[in-house]
Amino acid sequence: MKQILVIGAGRSATDLIDYLLENAEANQWLVTVGDMDLALATQKIKGHPSAKAIVLDGADIPQLTALIPAFDLVVSLLPPPMHPPIAEICIACGKHLVTASYISPAMANMDTAAKAKGLIFLNELGADPGIDHMSVMKGIDTIRKEGGTITELRAYCGSLIAPQSNDNPWGYKFTWSPMNVILAGKGAANYLKNGKRAFIPYNRLFASTESIEIEGLGKFDAYANRDSWSYINMYGIPEVKTLIRGTLRMEGYCEGWNALIRIGLTADDYKISGSEKMTHREWVSSYLPSNHGESAEQALAAFLGTAVNSPLMTRLESTGMLEDTPIMISNATPAEILYELLMKKWVFLSNDKDMLVMTDIIRYEKEGKTYEKTSNMSVIGKDYSHTAISRTVGLPAAMGVKLILQGKINRSGVIAPTTPDIYNPILTELKEHGIFFSEKTITLT
Amino acid sequence: MKQILVIGAGRSATDLIDYLLENAEANQWLVTVGDMDLALATQKIKGHPSAKAIVLDGADIPQLTALIPAFDLVVSLLPPPMHPPIAEICIACGKHLVTASYISPAMANMDTAAKAKGLIFLNELGADPGIDHMSVMKGIDTIRKEGGTITELRAYCGSLIAPQSNDNPWGYKFTWSPMNVILAGKGAANYLKNGKRAFIPYNRLFASTESIEIEGLGKFDAYANRDSWSYINMYGIPEVKTLIRGTLRMEGYCEGWNALIRIGLTADDYKISGSEKMTHREWVSSYLPSNHGESAEQALAAFLGTAVNSPLMTRLESTGMLEDTPIMISNATPAEILYELLMKKWVFLSNDKDMLVMTDIIRYEKEGKTYEKTSNMSVIGKDYSHTAISRTVGLPAAMGVKLILQGKINRSGVIAPTTPDIYNPILTELKEHGIFFSEKTITLT
Repeated sequence: MKQILVIGAGRSATDLIDYLLENAEANQWLVTVGDMDLALATQKIKGHPSAKAIVLDGADIPQLTALIPAFDLVVSLLPPPMHPPIAEICIACGKHLVTASYISPAMANMDTAAKAKGLIFLNELGADPGIDHMSVMKGIDTIRKEGGTITELRAYCGSLIAPQSNDNPWGYKFTWSPMNVILAGKGAANYLKNGKRAFIPYNRLFASTESIEIEGLGKFDAYANRDSWSYINMYGIPEVKTLIRGTLRMEGYCEGWNALIRIGLTADDYKISGSEKMTHREWVSSYLPSNHGESAEQALAAFLGTAVNSPLMTRLESTGMLEDTPIMISNATPAEILYELLMKKWVFLSNDKDMLVMTDIIRYEKEGKTYEKTSNMSVIGKDYSHTAISRTVGLPAAMGVKLILQGKINRSGVIAPTTPDIYNPILTELKEHGIFFSEKTITLT
Repeated sequence: MKQILVIGAGRSATDLIDYLLENAEANQWLVTVGDMDLALATQKIKGHPSAKAIVLDGADIPQLTALIPAFDLVVSLLPPPMHPPIAEICIACGKHLVTASYISPAMANMDTAAKAKGLIFLNELGADPGIDHMSVMKGIDTIRKEGGTITELRAYCGSLIAPQSNDNPWGYKFTWSPMNVILAGKGAANYLKNGKRAFIPYNRLFASTESIEIEGLGKFDAYANRDSWSYINMYGIPEVKTLIRGTLRMEGYCEGWNALIRIGLTADDYKISGSEKMTHREWVSSYLPSNHGESAEQALAAFLGTAVNSPLMTRLESTGMLEDTPIMISNATPAEILYELLMKKWVFLSNDKDMLVMTDIIRYEKEGKTYEKTSNMSVIGKDYSHTAISRTVGLPAAMGVKLILQGKINRSGVIAPTTPDIYNPILTELKEHGIFFSEKTITLT
């Protein structure tokens, strides 16, 4: 019997645990799910004979140190900063580790130690990062095998709301960490453009969007992710001239979000003393120049250079930001006030369905011709527990667990799913679960 | 004999120490100047018989605890975060304290303890904060005594370069903490405008300037300080409709600085990996959109909507930001790269003279008429040691020391120079040192 420890039974654990339990008997696995909330862990294992739920605090190093030696493999679904201490324990007692998170510098530093013990620390095996890497690397490897030279890679992903649940003017609900959405893009986006390094500072990020059309789904706004630059190395394509990774939103979202940034409502680097004495309307008005007795709506429209009844104004007003409702947080940052507003308006309801959309567009040259290969994926959630985000994060990670325990990965160290031994079987199996890319290649010149 | 301990012998200590030494004999003072750098402290006391230089680390709490009981009063010229631990020792052993820094929340919290021991912790007694408070409060108190109602207060200050040393297109050199100048305005400015609270976020701060004309000196740009809001309480004028405090720069500076912000070059919330492999020209170009083979100059001018040979471009190019010189800092933030550039170009040379400019404009109503009282001050440095900033910070603080030791302040606790018992004698004595305001009142309606 192989012993698997899953740490964290939250939203993205559902489909991972389901998959492990479905495959437990055939593979002779025993699955232990640990969470601070025993009821949650118990609910997720659904009384399965090969599973056990335990109370586990992912930050309790003594408990983890005592527990982990009894297992063969650990899956950590905790927030990224909590992985490295768990990885240290895995190194100390020789256990494999799977996460869906970006490889942090602390995690990267454990590569040598993991290799020395023949351990596999397989990370970035969720949706984005995860499925995106696998589709892109499969594309790159295939094109190169056929003699092509990669000149351009653009890859986009969005965790969105399904068309049938899209009922607000932003086309967005919180299917994922709300504060991360509110603070998205802080700093600058860094990518490669026509052979040169390019930056877009936060000020201009949501005003510098691309329109991405995806067959069958229509047009989306895409804004550049913070770091696309490091993917030149990660994907091993030093010859590429343009490389950009971005985030998809429904059309119009970025125009609206850019307005919030221009007004100043997404800032999180200062607190507003006495915010609890203001209404939302007063708060927004205090950011608008030249308020000469006109209404807040008129002042806002004038500041934005739009009409009072424009779609942009409708979108902004739908947040409640111009309502005379009291701000309930004292000495709050603008981002916190915005969070409070949007948490009421962008609720992912129990009958809502989410949608994960991914696309990667690779341009390459072969025998004097230029081609463009597009791979599109969209997944709609099954229900409130088996959301698109839970499925696309949980299933790849669970399949990674299977590959490791079946001894099918002949490498060790801190790795991501960028090699065919990992991406081929996982992409193939994901297809059986309805998660697949439609691919199309056209000749450009 | 009264024993005075001055902690810190840096630039702003020169005139303070000079004043204390000049007044030492008549007042029977012994002045001890402590600094990490004994040579600096020794140089500042110039062999005066009533003075002593010692090695002192302002962060060494045990040393300070052993030392302070021997003194009657402590002057801390250290950076603001270092004051509170020193204040704690002053409370423990019953000593007065003078600083030129803003009253931090930690300092404010010591008010009750200081009062209980009858101690005076006199802060904000430099140039700005300091002389500004004194001029403004004198104006407010005088107007109220004459039956006027304050409706508007605008107060501005700039630590600038004297006209005879103004030889770069920005009209600016670093006479003060360079990094504070580079990060100026981060967050948002908060002030009172026509009876309403107003915010200007960083994005728009240097594009939302006022032009302030000062008689005899010409026009200056003024941008709003971070916090003007709390001065409604500090100055005790709840009836005021507009209250703004701002920073003065030479005309054109703010247009240039706004361009740096728009491009993205003042950010300090992310690091640029591999910055040491770029030149300044490559760095700036990487922030400019749609670079289709044109020169960096053309791309920059197009982005800013200005001509290639405009004054704005001349100003920007004078920083060296478009030169193909290598960036010498690895993994630097944009602000750090800008700092590196400007530290070479905005050097305050030994033959340069600085200039402190201050103005406050108070509007008030009296017997149905509206008046505007303007108070202007400008001070030019005497020499490289006795700069305008050293004189205007050091002299008020030194005069505050004298008032306390002569028993002329009949209050205790954590205070600022906002009452006549403090501002009257200090403003009068500052005039003898050539630091004074020209006042003028006009009838508006």
